[in-house]
Amino acid sequence: MSSPSPELKLSAYANRLPGSPVREILSVSQQPGMISFAGGLPDASVMPEMPELGDLSSIKQYGTSDGEALVKQELVKWLGSEGLACTEDQIMITSGSQQGLDLAARILVDVGTQVVVEDPTYLAMLQVLRGLGADLVPFDLGENGVDLASLEQQLKDKNPRMVYLIPTFQNPTGYSYTEAERIAVAELLDRYDVTLIEDDPYRVLNYDNAFTRPICSYLKKATWMYMGSFSKMLWPGLRTGYVIAHPDLYPWILRAKQATDLHSNRLGQKIIGDFMAAGSLPAHIERLQNHYRVKRDLMQKLLKQYLPESVKWKLPAGGMFFWLELETDTRDVLSKGIEAKVVPLPGTPFEVEKSAGKALRLSFSQMTPEDMEEGLKRLAKVLETL
Amino acid sequence: MSSPSPELKLSAYANRLPGSPVREILSVSQQPGMISFAGGLPDASVMPEMPELGDLSSIKQYGTSDGEALVKQELVKWLGSEGLACTEDQIMITSGSQQGLDLAARILVDVGTQVVVEDPTYLAMLQVLRGLGADLVPFDLGENGVDLASLEQQLKDKNPRMVYLIPTFQNPTGYSYTEAERIAVAELLDRYDVTLIEDDPYRVLNYDNAFTRPICSYLKKATWMYMGSFSKMLWPGLRTGYVIAHPDLYPWILRAKQATDLHSNRLGQKIIGDFMAAGSLPAHIERLQNHYRVKRDLMQKLLKQYLPESVKWKLPAGGMFFWLELETDTRDVLSKGIEAKVVPLPGTPFEVEKSAGKALRLSFSQMTPEDMEEGLKRLAKVLETL
Repeated sequence: MSSPSPELKLSAYANRLPGSPVREILSVSQQPGMISFAGGLPDASVMPEMPELGDLSSIKQYGTSDGEALVKQELVKWLGSEGLACTEDQIMITSGSQQGLDLAARILVDVGTQVVVEDPTYLAMLQVLRGLGADLVPFDLGENGVDLASLEQQLKDKNPRMVYLIPTFQNPTGYSYTEAERIAVAELLDRYDVTLIEDDPYRVLNYDNAFTRPICSYLKKATWMYMGSFSKMLWPGLRTGYVIAHPDLYPWILRAKQATDLHSNRLGQKIIGDFMAAGSLPAHIERLQNHYRVKRDLMQKLLKQYLPESVKWKLPAGGMFFWLELETDTRDVLSKGIEAKVVPLPGTPFEVEKSAGKALRLSFSQMTPEDMEEGLKRLAKVLETL
Repeated sequence: MSSPSPELKLSAYANRLPGSPVREILSVSQQPGMISFAGGLPDASVMPEMPELGDLSSIKQYGTSDGEALVKQELVKWLGSEGLACTEDQIMITSGSQQGLDLAARILVDVGTQVVVEDPTYLAMLQVLRGLGADLVPFDLGENGVDLASLEQQLKDKNPRMVYLIPTFQNPTGYSYTEAERIAVAELLDRYDVTLIEDDPYRVLNYDNAFTRPICSYLKKATWMYMGSFSKMLWPGLRTGYVIAHPDLYPWILRAKQATDLHSNRLGQKIIGDFMAAGSLPAHIERLQNHYRVKRDLMQKLLKQYLPESVKWKLPAGGMFFWLELETDTRDVLSKGIEAKVVPLPGTPFEVEKSAGKALRLSFSQMTPEDMEEGLKRLAKVLETL
């Protein structure tokens, strides 16, 4: 299903909206004996038990569009400690950070609006932007980090309304902006007065004490929205995320939220608010970091051991992914991998304009050590046949 | 805040999107001593206790975009018994039925798309449609029910892609289509091949055994999407609703759901699925009907007792609202009501083209008998001053 049948009269949005290749790959991944590096799912074994829920009578009724006071109060404290000073009236709770991205894009993007994005970038945001008919303006994010000259050129030459960045443990590359890059990007955005959408789901998955202060916190003139998620940190099944917005933009994203679904589910907000208010977050974050760091380090060792020398990557300082750059075309790797019972994720759906088809994203978050080793052995054999 | 400041560069969607007058009125309603007829909130006292949740480990992880199997299975059984035969693969769980409306409109409506609506109709759907830039094509829904001639004229003269209807205990009028009207409307939609969006949140709030078989179930040729809600029936705070879609439209609304928020919260789905699977729904629905029927009947009695004879209404066979038609302009009624510590909801935000400003929507769902009587006494005095 890539385009609707001609008898169906659908909107331009529906006609433009690409499907999600990951969702299709996920069903293949569930076949018996298959070892999958494709998904970006957190490891359920390190999710905390849910707290005792107690009396739920207070959250049966409809709630407010902006969200529950408790979780907002806890976010103000926690984000303040992370370098993003904000107040409760800048916070809107969403149904996962994907909803924040969709709403932010809806209030900013028209058909033909120029939107600056990293190349490569998060595929589900590309889906959102392509659905809205945005004109994508990519700048290079590669082995050497942010190409500031390329970013500035795009800001100068085009007339972008919005820049979408994932500065911390970027998906898919794993790259994390340095302090100097964060400051330089903020200065550029202030100078050209472009709204920043900062997407930050992987913040706490920080294995090497990387510098992670949000770029939003450096902005003096440009408006911004910051997208946060509880999904990588706590329980994705609760579908609870948040937006922190510049005061000028806040009323507009709240209005869009009202029209979209009135408010987000209150039970998820209560569970997360209770967890944070109990002071359980710091120890949990440390546990997460230790758990995933071991997996990342094993992945690094096994990649070196099994993959051909021609494959290049950088050790990610956080997040869930290794981004491999190959000399050969990877577009056949999926079908050949499935035959060999291993599922990598080709880089193509993340790429905007880059010489496509020469990268792979491998997730280590859910792998057992045995599957990781066996999977990389299988993948190495597949790569030989490309 | 009705339009953005000129320095803000927002999308056309944001610029078109009206605010929600009800949300603003709700904050007034919460002032001490205020008696409010404005909201459409269910009565929390008749919401069931939430079931024991037990082991939640199965719903910590990300879920599928279409929704949880258990609640889908239960919906197939229940909707089958309500006259809407469907299969699990036609069901998509949403974050409340408002999300279903937003997604349905997004996949069907472009700027200038002609959309046929009842006049008056649900104000938050007007918000969605106006945000998308739809060209609204109203037909009359008044004291005598559906104006079939006016509907057919609109279908013939315009080129609508979609018809939005609330045939059962309509919001705001309380009107419920007769069997003959349902059949006649379905025939018209088949003849002119227009997609039907059938919005059905009040289905179970049926006090007089009204005929409620969904219009969708009569369609032979036209495509359709049916919007259901658990909010009026169970716990609105869980933000869980559903769409049943014609097989041709299903893949498109599912794709839009993926891009919008990946999936809906799983805990709400589990709680509702468990409740239905335990067989608790029929007795609960009967309790709801008995609870609200008493309120409706008291409201009818007190309206007759206190309101001037010139005010006209029909007894609603279900739902939460009385729709009063007055001879005088009601646009001042809100400010004068607030002075007198009573909050009615003026009809204007529900009206599309109708001789606006002569109606009131009064909700009886949350009122105590004492507040209802005192509130109507106050309202009667306010009406004398208009």
